[in-house]
Amino acid sequence: MNHVWQIQELLHTKIPITRALGVKVEAYDGERLILSAPLDPNINHMGTAFGGSLNALAVLSGYGLLWLEMQNPECHIVIRESSISYYHPVRGEIRATCARPHEETLYEFKKTFHEKGRARIALSSTIEDAGITCVRFQGTFVALS
Amino acid sequence: MNHVWQIQELLHTKIPITRALGVKVEAYDGERLILSAPLDPNINHMGTAFGGSLNALAVLSGYGLLWLEMQNPECHIVIRESSISYYHPVRGEIRATCARPHEETLYEFKKTFHEKGRARIALSSTIEDAGITCVRFQGTFVALS
Repeated sequence: MNHVWQIQELLHTKIPITRALGVKVEAYDGERLILSAPLDPNINHMGTAFGGSLNALAVLSGYGLLWLEMQNPECHIVIRESSISYYHPVRGEIRATCARPHEETLYEFKKTFHEKGRARIALSSTIEDAGITCVRFQGTFVALS
Repeated sequence: MNHVWQIQELLHTKIPITRALGVKVEAYDGERLILSAPLDPNINHMGTAFGGSLNALAVLSGYGLLWLEMQNPECHIVIRESSISYYHPVRGEIRATCARPHEETLYEFKKTFHEKGRARIALSSTIEDAGITCVRFQGTFVALS
């Protein structure tokens, strides 16, 4: 069973670049998983957060959400494709929020995975700074057995 | 003037997470800029390259190419949006290749930047492993004065 406080350890162990990024699990309320990372290690040539770090946080928020949902050590999550828009620079701590999909979408995803050993799902994440949505990310993730 | 051997130093200085990623400038022949990073610091829970690292290398190959093209310390490059498809896992060294756009496209981009102090351009990067295209990236970059 993956509890929310184990997701940070899983990320740091399984995807070691997350330690350099400074990724932390901030919160999970059953509907939204929030990951954070400090600006300093992720700063760019403009003094704001590097786009590659913002995208990485968004991807990781998707992994974390699906690890919490699937609770199955034989289920491996990978990313298949994604798109991201950077509307405003992030000037402080990076906070990526992945929203839990609708119950029906998750039910179909889990059902397909259990029947076929493979299923895909679309997830959305956002990054806000000072109350403004700076980044919108959409990714298609695949669960494999 | 940014020479190709200065791009690695620029990346490591201006975007310090590139040091943790292990980014190196591999080659530039006037048509394609190739950046590399070793698998080890970028490994994921599947023993292959983390999608966030692959995307970061692709973004950085775009920055590097535009820094080489613009040669202007008052020109700041940022990324506006991008999409990426992960077709196959990358099991070895990450090598991201950004292709120089057509001469006419670059000419229009530079002309617009000089006239308006702002211009945008689409760039494509690919990541190959063992002769197979594993990742395709397309990004829209903006030059600001």
